[in-house]
Amino acid sequence: MTTKTEAGPEHVLTLERVIDAPVDKVWRCWTEPELLEKWFCPKPWYVSDAKIDLKPGGEFSSVMHGPNGEKFDNMGVFLEIEPQRRLVTTDAFRPGWIPNGRAFMAAEMRFEDAGGGKTRYIARAMHWNEDTLKEHEQMGFREGWGKAADQLETLAKSL
Amino acid sequence: MTTKTEAGPEHVLTLERVIDAPVDKVWRCWTEPELLEKWFCPKPWYVSDAKIDLKPGGEFSSVMHGPNGEKFDNMGVFLEIEPQRRLVTTDAFRPGWIPNGRAFMAAEMRFEDAGGGKTRYIARAMHWNEDTLKEHEQMGFREGWGKAADQLETLAKSL
Repeated sequence: MTTKTEAGPEHVLTLERVIDAPVDKVWRCWTEPELLEKWFCPKPWYVSDAKIDLKPGGEFSSVMHGPNGEKFDNMGVFLEIEPQRRLVTTDAFRPGWIPNGRAFMAAEMRFEDAGGGKTRYIARAMHWNEDTLKEHEQMGFREGWGKAADQLETLAKSL
Repeated sequence: MTTKTEAGPEHVLTLERVIDAPVDKVWRCWTEPELLEKWFCPKPWYVSDAKIDLKPGGEFSSVMHGPNGEKFDNMGVFLEIEPQRRLVTTDAFRPGWIPNGRAFMAAEMRFEDAGGGKTRYIARAMHWNEDTLKEHEQMGFREGWGKAADQLETLAKSL
């Protein structure tokens, strides 16, 4: 399987792993709000109010909560949806294609059948420049997305 | 007719006018590369190599040429297409949803039947912040987009 990109992005962080659950269950965890809320943030952080409008330009938002009462709105939209295969989101817009805050990243998630009821899960955070890439690394991309993927796997296996 | 935006954008420049040609002809001028090249830049500037892949994430690019040999690549993608009604583009991505340069603007063009074979044409340039809005104003948004719309009208009437 190849990606659709003609030239690779320059400022990308990638998480790739095999999840011990089939694609349809991993897909559900990504696209059903009540499931997303259960895994999307590494504990003890969590998200509430997940909104998933699965179409280009459709809302993809949630509220992130921290253990000390921290609260952040997480607003974005979907850019592209290939059911059971690929999701692309960005925080650069809110619904109506309204430019939102500053453009921080686009995220592409791919879901591939890895055989034996497992899923190859490839998540890429693509940034506009080196500064935001580094900022994201320092925010703990690898540990954060890794822990969230652990939670995603646990949830998908339980479905 | 109302827009689909839930909350208005803050950093927007708008051109609104009635074009003396029907919607289907104005739409053609926007969506056929060989027509786009004839009007998209105010003369004596012009564009060549227009690429129009009319789907979300599809390429929308051209090369701008100035009278003194200036040459600028104009790379972007479509975000949303409502045939004969609405187009949304941005320069923030190149195909593959790869973050592109800096995110400067999203542009929304609406085409409404104004009766009598005319089209109400509403073009909005939506920016991420006040700085880029001002930069766009200083680059001559009003005169530039206005002249281009004159050229668009002349071409659409001739079809």
